[in-house]
Amino acid sequence: MMKMERIDRVLQAMQERGLTQMIVCDPQSIDYLTGVYVEPFERLFALYLRTDGRHLFFLNKLFTVPETPIEQVWFTDTDDAIGQVAERMQPGVPLGIDKEWPARFLLPLMERLPGTPCRLASDCVDSVRGCKDPAEQELMRMNSRLNDEVMGRAAAFIRQGMTEREVADYLLAQYRDLGCEGPSFSPIVSFGANAADPHHMPDDTRLQAGDCIVLDIGGKKAGYCSDMTRTYFCRTVSDKHAAIHDLVRRANEAAEALVRPGVPLCELDKAARDLIAAAGYGEYFTHRLGHFIGRTEHEQGDVSSANTTPAREGMIFSIEPGVYLPGEMGVRVEDLVLVTADGCEVLNRADKHCRVIG
Amino acid sequence: MMKMERIDRVLQAMQERGLTQMIVCDPQSIDYLTGVYVEPFERLFALYLRTDGRHLFFLNKLFTVPETPIEQVWFTDTDDAIGQVAERMQPGVPLGIDKEWPARFLLPLMERLPGTPCRLASDCVDSVRGCKDPAEQELMRMNSRLNDEVMGRAAAFIRQGMTEREVADYLLAQYRDLGCEGPSFSPIVSFGANAADPHHMPDDTRLQAGDCIVLDIGGKKAGYCSDMTRTYFCRTVSDKHAAIHDLVRRANEAAEALVRPGVPLCELDKAARDLIAAAGYGEYFTHRLGHFIGRTEHEQGDVSSANTTPAREGMIFSIEPGVYLPGEMGVRVEDLVLVTADGCEVLNRADKHCRVIG
Repeated sequence: MMKMERIDRVLQAMQERGLTQMIVCDPQSIDYLTGVYVEPFERLFALYLRTDGRHLFFLNKLFTVPETPIEQVWFTDTDDAIGQVAERMQPGVPLGIDKEWPARFLLPLMERLPGTPCRLASDCVDSVRGCKDPAEQELMRMNSRLNDEVMGRAAAFIRQGMTEREVADYLLAQYRDLGCEGPSFSPIVSFGANAADPHHMPDDTRLQAGDCIVLDIGGKKAGYCSDMTRTYFCRTVSDKHAAIHDLVRRANEAAEALVRPGVPLCELDKAARDLIAAAGYGEYFTHRLGHFIGRTEHEQGDVSSANTTPAREGMIFSIEPGVYLPGEMGVRVEDLVLVTADGCEVLNRADKHCRVIG
Repeated sequence: MMKMERIDRVLQAMQERGLTQMIVCDPQSIDYLTGVYVEPFERLFALYLRTDGRHLFFLNKLFTVPETPIEQVWFTDTDDAIGQVAERMQPGVPLGIDKEWPARFLLPLMERLPGTPCRLASDCVDSVRGCKDPAEQELMRMNSRLNDEVMGRAAAFIRQGMTEREVADYLLAQYRDLGCEGPSFSPIVSFGANAADPHHMPDDTRLQAGDCIVLDIGGKKAGYCSDMTRTYFCRTVSDKHAAIHDLVRRANEAAEALVRPGVPLCELDKAARDLIAAAGYGEYFTHRLGHFIGRTEHEQGDVSSANTTPAREGMIFSIEPGVYLPGEMGVRVEDLVLVTADGCEVLNRADKHCRVIG
C-alpha cells in the first residue's frame, strides 16, 4: 500500500532543501514510503523520488514486488543497472542520495553523471520517519510492553553460575514465545568486568556473586523494535557499585524529565552527562545518551552533544546513560521515550532501581 | 593477529591498479586482514592501507580492539570523524574506496578532498579473499559436511501438513545442535507454488502431496559459511516436475564438470544455461549460476554471463541452477565447489537426485 501522505512529506522536505530528485535505497525507508519490502542483499534496489511526481522503482528481476502506481524499471543480474539508473536521472541538477547507498553504486553513478552534483539527502526521509504517526506509536508502545515482560522473566530466571550465553539463549526464546519476529538486535548480556565494554557479546563467562548484570535487549514485532537496558547485581552489591547504579538511574531520570517538544536533544545529553560528571565519573560515560528507533533498532538521529535538533512530538528515542569501569564493571539504564505534546511518555515500565537477583 | 601475508597481497593488488592508498570498511575484510573484528553498526570503522606501509585504523572509542602494529586513530561520537580521516589521506592522488562504504561517509569525505579522485577499489581485497588458503578451505569443507548432515535430518523430518515455518524452525535448531554460531542466512523453505520465488521466505503454507520442497540452507561455524539447496517432492511427483528436477540436476553437474583453473566463470553459467534453454526452460532460469562464499554467504564475485574472470585455485563458489514456474513450482540444486589444481572438489555430498519424501 502506497503511503502518499508520507511521500508528500518527503517531497516537501526535498523542496525545502532545494532538491528536485533523490535516490532512496534503505529497504526500510522504501517499505515505509511504499509498502514494498525487498531484501536486496548486494543487488541494486532503489526508489527514485522526484518533486514533480515522476517517481521510479529500480528493481532486479529476482525481486518479487506487487504492482505499484510507481513506474517500475527492471533489470537482470547481468544488465548494466547503473547505466539504466543514470539515463533516467535529471542531468545537471543536484541529486539527493540516501546515506546508506554503498560506494559500489554511488561511485559508478557519479562517473556516469559528471555534471550532476550528488548530495547526502537522507534527512529528507529520516526527518519524516523520525516522527512516528499514531499507528506506529501504538506498535512501539506494545513492543516495549513485551520487552518489559521479557526483562521481568530474565530477572527471575538468572542464577549465579549461569553463562552469559545461556541467558542470551533464554532471552531469544522469550521473544519467540511472545510472538516476536525475533530480537531487534543480538541481546547484550554482560557479567562483571565484561560489562565495561558497552557492546560486549555474550560468551561463556559464568555469573559470580557481586557481579553486575547488564541486560540490553529488545524484540521486533509487526516490523517495529523495542530496546531497553537494566543492570542488576548477583546476590550482593558493593556500596560503590550501588552508588554508581543510583547515579546512572538518576541521570536517566534527569534526562527523561526534560523531554518535551522544542528542547534541543543535546540538552538531554548534557543533563545526564553533567550529573555523572559532577559525581566524578564523566570520563567513564563514553557514548552518546541515546538514539532514535523504530523499524530498525538504530534509526537516524542521536541524542548527543552534537545534535542541536529540537525534540518534536512523535519522536521516539532511547535515554541510556552508562558508566563503564575497565576491568571492573559497567552500568547502563535505558528506556525508550515518546515525545508527547507537553512532555514525554516513557515506554518502559520495568523497575530501574538497584536490585540484587540470582 | 595481523595477517601480514594477506595485507601484502592486497598492497600488491593496489600497486597493480595504480593505487597508493585505500579505505577498507567491510568488517569481514578488516577481520580477514588484521584479526580485528568490530561490528560498527552506523559508526565509522575503517582500515586505511598504504603501499608505503603507513596503515591506520580509524576507530570509535566505543569499539574494543586489541593493540595492533597498525597506528590507531580514535574519535568519539561527537568528534568530526570524517575530518580526521580527510586530514590523514594523501591529497591529490587517487584514493581507493571499499564498495561497502556508505554515502554518509563517502560524500562528506569527497567534499573535504575535492582534488582527490575516489575510485572503487574493493577488488584489491576481494580478489585476495576470493582464493581461500588451506585453513579456510578446511573450515569450508567441515561446514559443508555439517550442512549435508542438516539436509539429511530435514529430509527425514519433513511430513505432509507441516508448515514452512515449522521446517525452518527445525533447521535452525539443527545448526545450533551441531555447534554452529547460527544459520549463514535465513533458511529458505518453499513449498509448491511458493518455490517459484527463488527468495521466498517461510510462511504458514502447509505441505501438500505433490508439492515441491525447496530447501536452501546454510550454517556458520568458526566464522565461515555453508550454503546448499536440494529440492524434494512430497509423497508423489508428476512426470513433468521430475523431468524438470532431472534437468536442473544435470545443469548443476554439467557446470561442475567444467570447473578447473583458467575456465572463465561465465562459461560455467553458459553450460548450465544452455542445457536448460535447450529443454525449453531458459526463460525460467532467472538468476546467475552462482556466487562466491566464505566469511559471508555472498562474497564478491559471481558466476554469471557477465563475469569473464578465470577460475583460480582456492576459489569457492556456488553452482545453483534453477527453474521457476510462476504459480506452479520451482526447483534449484546447489552445491559449493572448491577450485583445485586440476578441477574442483564438490563440497556437498547430499544426494541430488529427484526424491520423494514426507
